[in-house]
This record gives sequence, structure tokens and C-alpha cells, in this order.
Amino acid sequence: MKITILSIFPEMFAGFLDTSIIKKARLKGLVEYELVDIRSFSKDKHNRVDDYSFGGGAGMVFLYQPVVDALAFVKTPKSHVIMMAPAGYLFKQKRARELKEYEHLILICGHYEGFDERILQHVDEVLCIGDYVLTGGELAAMVVADAVTRLVDGVIAEDSPQEESFENGLLEYPQYTRPDTIDGFTVPEVLLSGHHEKIAQWRRKESLRKTWKYRPELLEKIDLDKKDRQYLEEIVLEEDKV
Amino acid sequence: MKITILSIFPEMFAGFLDTSIIKKARLKGLVEYELVDIRSFSKDKHNRVDDYSFGGGAGMVFLYQPVVDALAFVKTPKSHVIMMAPAGYLFKQKRARELKEYEHLILICGHYEGFDERILQHVDEVLCIGDYVLTGGELAAMVVADAVTRLVDGVIAEDSPQEESFENGLLEYPQYTRPDTIDGFTVPEVLLSGHHEKIAQWRRKESLRKTWKYRPELLEKIDLDKKDRQYLEEIVLEEDKV
Repeated sequence: MKITILSIFPEMFAGFLDTSIIKKARLKGLVEYELVDIRSFSKDKHNRVDDYSFGGGAGMVFLYQPVVDALAFVKTPKSHVIMMAPAGYLFKQKRARELKEYEHLILICGHYEGFDERILQHVDEVLCIGDYVLTGGELAAMVVADAVTRLVDGVIAEDSPQEESFENGLLEYPQYTRPDTIDGFTVPEVLLSGHHEKIAQWRRKESLRKTWKYRPELLEKIDLDKKDRQYLEEIVLEEDKV
Repeated sequence: MKITILSIFPEMFAGFLDTSIIKKARLKGLVEYELVDIRSFSKDKHNRVDDYSFGGGAGMVFLYQPVVDALAFVKTPKSHVIMMAPAGYLFKQKRARELKEYEHLILICGHYEGFDERILQHVDEVLCIGDYVLTGGELAAMVVADAVTRLVDGVIAEDSPQEESFENGLLEYPQYTRPDTIDGFTVPEVLLSGHHEKIAQWRRKESLRKTWKYRPELLEKIDLDKKDRQYLEEIVLEEDKV
């Protein structure tokens, strides 16, 4: 797989490409990353890549030409082109799993107040990583590249991804590691019991508790069995006492 | 304002701190950024910061001691401590506006499969940036730092933030800049008309269209007036024809 990133701040990706899972995927030859500086495609003598918005309004707008020329430079028939911008579909784990099937992803980092809408004529989809305003699409591109990379075969251990938050529609259960007591805080006894079934039950219930507490709307989207509903009734009573 | 980031990959932030709005806020002295390497607080002779999960399961869990010691090193009575992790409240623009009021934010980047739950005894809130699985909390911390920084007084032009996506509950309207025709694509005529009221109406309608198309659930959360509802009826008919 290859991931190409089009940005006016390619230097922002230095730390990202040289750390952790991305570095591993890169060094193992599993994912190739390519950074392209949109500014180098400017035809303006001052290397400008933006201009005022037609119709007025604050802020500068990305010009069509440098972005589309940069895109033409890297695009092949196998490329899937994504604009990272707030006005798009919300990126979720399901989409990350779908995106890892493409041979070549091109992520365009929108910037400033916006971009010339006509650029979208050359784009396959617009993705947004969350309901907040960022300076530019660079962090959003890193988020998509990271989420997709770790799903590529061979990048991380195979038994890992399924257990994590969002993969089964729930937030992950609490984890504990050594020592079993620290600063007066202890590990829940069941986790030290070695009783696999009870541990699995405890984790399911605590996973439901986290989801109920922080993201109750997620509970409406998954199928809860009889046991799950019983756990939730218990949780409501328990949390009410706290 | 000061933002402290606790991470086992501080080098990942190099490009981030040296680019764009963050660099500007830093050089202007408006926001101070501090990076702390959690690993330097390890008491293990191999500098380990993680261990196996009690109760079994794939992956390694962040140890309590190095994280809590790193936190104690940077925390003051004015600090607000945030753990960046999937099992938390969803970070949105509203929370970014609230967070900018704190004098000192400490962002802990969770990593690996999780962290010892007892660390949360020292944390004020857990924030998640979206429903996807990342390698670690580093990108999440950058997202929060970026979203908060750009709201700090003096960092960007004052008339800018309100107009953007999510600030009024809608996605932003399309933008266009010079030239008015390129590759056969033209700018909507109204934007060249100089007629401010018509431009404002067009933008409101297109903002509604983007939201209807990409994020219809956002429309349920805002107050739509009679004109908005009329625009939406038109949009449904127009999009149906496409």
C-alpha cells in the first residue's frame, strides 16, 4: 500500500513518519508514504497557494491550480483521492477498514479558511475526523494514515485489533497491570482469579459501563443480548449509588 | 496558557510544534508548550513503561508508576489533567472553547493496548477525538492542542472562528477563489454579484446542503427557522434530480 499526502506543511509530518507504528510499517516495506508540497506546484512568482474568497468573508482560500496540478502529478488509475476537511463524512473505524483495501490513498490537507470548491471535481470523498475546527488537514491526514496503517496485514499482532474500542461497538473495558496494589489502589479481584469465564463476564460488563457513562448513544447502535441488558440494569443502580 | 504533553514519543511532536498556528502562538508567547517523556520516569532498569494485562489478553498496558510520577512532576494546583484515550467523552468544538479558559492543560497520551485504570484517579477527564483506533494518544493530543490554541486570544484573526464549520452547528458553505473559470468549471454567479444579502442567503442554503448531504444528524441539533426549512425542501428536490 502507498499513502501520498499533499500538504503545504510537509515538514509537519517528520515526527509522525519517524515514530512507532508508521516507522515500523515503513521499514518493513508494508506501507510506502509519500509527501508532496503543494506549494512547489504554485505558478505564482511569490509561490502563493491561496487567494481571497469570491463573495467576501474572512480568510484565504486554497487555489484550484496548485492543488489540482499536485494531484495530477501523483495520481494513477489506482488512486483513491480523499480531501481532509470539516465539511465531509465523519471518519470512523469502519471506513478505516475499507480504506486499507486501496492500493493507493491520496490525502489532501485542506488549509486556511477553506479551498476552492472546484477542487472536489477531482476528489473521490471528503472526510472529517471530528466536530472540531483544526488549523488544517495535516493532523486529520495523520489520523487517517495511522488508523489505516495499523490495520494493514503484518503491521501489528493479529489478535489485537478486534478487542479494542469501537471494533465491537463498545468502549474498551478497564485494564490493570502490576503491581496489584499501588498508592492504596487495588486491582479488581476477579482479574487475579484465573477464572477465564468470570473475567470475560466482568470485562463485558465494564465495557458496557464505560460506554453507558461516556458514549450512551453507541448503545443504541448495537445488539444487546439478555445478559447485556441485565448488566446495564445493574450498572444504572450501581452508578446511582456512587 | 500552558499545554504540557506527557508521551513516550515526544519526538513525534517536533514537526507539530514547529509549524503554522502552534509555532505562531509559541513565538508570540501566547501559549507555552512543554513535552515530557514518560519513559524518563521509569524505575525499571530497562526503562520499561508497560507490562501484561491482569486477567490476560493481547497487548501491553501502561504502568501506573511512570505516568503518575511524570504527572506529579508537572502538575500544579491550576492544572487540568486530560487522558487522551478511546474510552472517554467525545471531544467537540464546544469543549475546545471551554478548555481554552484553563491556565494549564496536561494531556496524557495513552498508548499500546491501554493503560492501568488506576491512573485515572489522578485525571480530571478522559477525551476521545473520534470513533477510530489510533496507535496512541499522540495525534489526539495534537488535535486538542491545535483546536484549543487557535481559539486563544491573539492567535488568529478575530472575525474568523465563528464562520467556520461546527461553530454554528452546520458545515461550512463552499468557497471559491480566482480565476472565475478554470478547466471549464465556473464560480456560482451570485458570488460575483456583489449583492451581500443574496450571497449570505446562498451561503446559508449551501451550508444546509453540505450538512444535509454529509452529516444529516447535525440538523436535528440546531434551531432551523422558516427560511431554513424552505431551503431544505428545495435541496431535497434539487439533489433528487441529480
